[in-house]
Amino acid sequence: MGTQAQRTEQWADVTPDAARRLLTAAVEAFAERGYHATTTRDIAGRAGMSPAALYIHYRTKEELLYRISGVGHRLALGILRRAHDGPGSPAERLADAVRRFVRWHAEHHTTARVVQYELGALGEEHHAEIVALRRETDAAVRAIIEEGVAAGDFDVPDVRGTSLAVLSLCVDVARWFSVDGRRTPEEVGDLYAGLVLRMVGHGNGVRAAGA
Amino acid sequence: MGTQAQRTEQWADVTPDAARRLLTAAVEAFAERGYHATTTRDIAGRAGMSPAALYIHYRTKEELLYRISGVGHRLALGILRRAHDGPGSPAERLADAVRRFVRWHAEHHTTARVVQYELGALGEEHHAEIVALRRETDAAVRAIIEEGVAAGDFDVPDVRGTSLAVLSLCVDVARWFSVDGRRTPEEVGDLYAGLVLRMVGHGNGVRAAGA
Repeated sequence: MGTQAQRTEQWADVTPDAARRLLTAAVEAFAERGYHATTTRDIAGRAGMSPAALYIHYRTKEELLYRISGVGHRLALGILRRAHDGPGSPAERLADAVRRFVRWHAEHHTTARVVQYELGALGEEHHAEIVALRRETDAAVRAIIEEGVAAGDFDVPDVRGTSLAVLSLCVDVARWFSVDGRRTPEEVGDLYAGLVLRMVGHGNGVRAAGA
Repeated sequence: MGTQAQRTEQWADVTPDAARRLLTAAVEAFAERGYHATTTRDIAGRAGMSPAALYIHYRTKEELLYRISGVGHRLALGILRRAHDGPGSPAERLADAVRRFVRWHAEHHTTARVVQYELGALGEEHHAEIVALRRETDAAVRAIIEEGVAAGDFDVPDVRGTSLAVLSLCVDVARWFSVDGRRTPEEVGDLYAGLVLRMVGHGNGVRAAGA
């Protein structure tokens, strides 16, 4: 679950304080019991507020999920875009993207699970908006891989499929990561950066005669 | 969701017919609304049965989840064990394991999601039993990778971490796979088999001069 600071930092832009407390309460409730088994009364109770106070900030339970999903997806997209726009070779930028993306999913695994597993509960318009953010996320990873291929640094027969696999590998960290496990978020990030460079045929550490 | 045949084949060993119908109804209900939002009444209704008829076969909702999880985990373990015990080099057996494991998660993604995302809802004893099955699953993949390293075919600095990443990559197919998507389960399986061989440093198709 990361530290308290890591858990709250992601909601720093949500104001006022009561709206932020309700979002974090909703994440915990959705993660524990699932979206459909959670009521707005549960969420208000966890935040130490009345249901009436909740409705000042969010009209529906779905709006809470939509806000959580939006914050999560925008943070993830920001991480990948900054890595894409950063200095260094495509390999350095891809490794940086993977390290940061993995660390985010490990440290914020509770939020990430809600964001990933409850997509189907969003209303139609909200779903379309989140899907558009997901396409931009895919595009950011694909762009780094394409730049590596263009530079002759990567060897990737299927760029779209490989981009999808890289993102999937990183996102799934949120499912299995445990603070009681063997590895820190940084260690998982380092391991995965190396594996992803192999996936794109950068060949770090791969024996030339291996095949 | 695969074909109807693919969906029912996984429950073929569950008898009598009424018990099997209840399991498939429970999978659908859990997948749609989550475990905690589903009642035994919902499940009986989907199976066209009365709640009393359900209790003849399953004492609790948790028992249904436990049976589903057991079937899913044993099928997954069987796939990997057969691949491990099969003929061929470690690379051929690892590629075979990944292809079959991915196809299973794509074709049975509804079951796989329930199995993976609702682990926390199992009772303590059942949870321990399923965790033991998961350790055997990890061990089956790790064994193939260790055999490849011992044979000098793979180059894997972190066997435990790489085994975990390979399994995670395959399991997450259940989250994103859609029958309306671009790729068939077989195509995803082939793509992933190639990516996993790269992850273990088998180097297929990786340019020797890439690094």
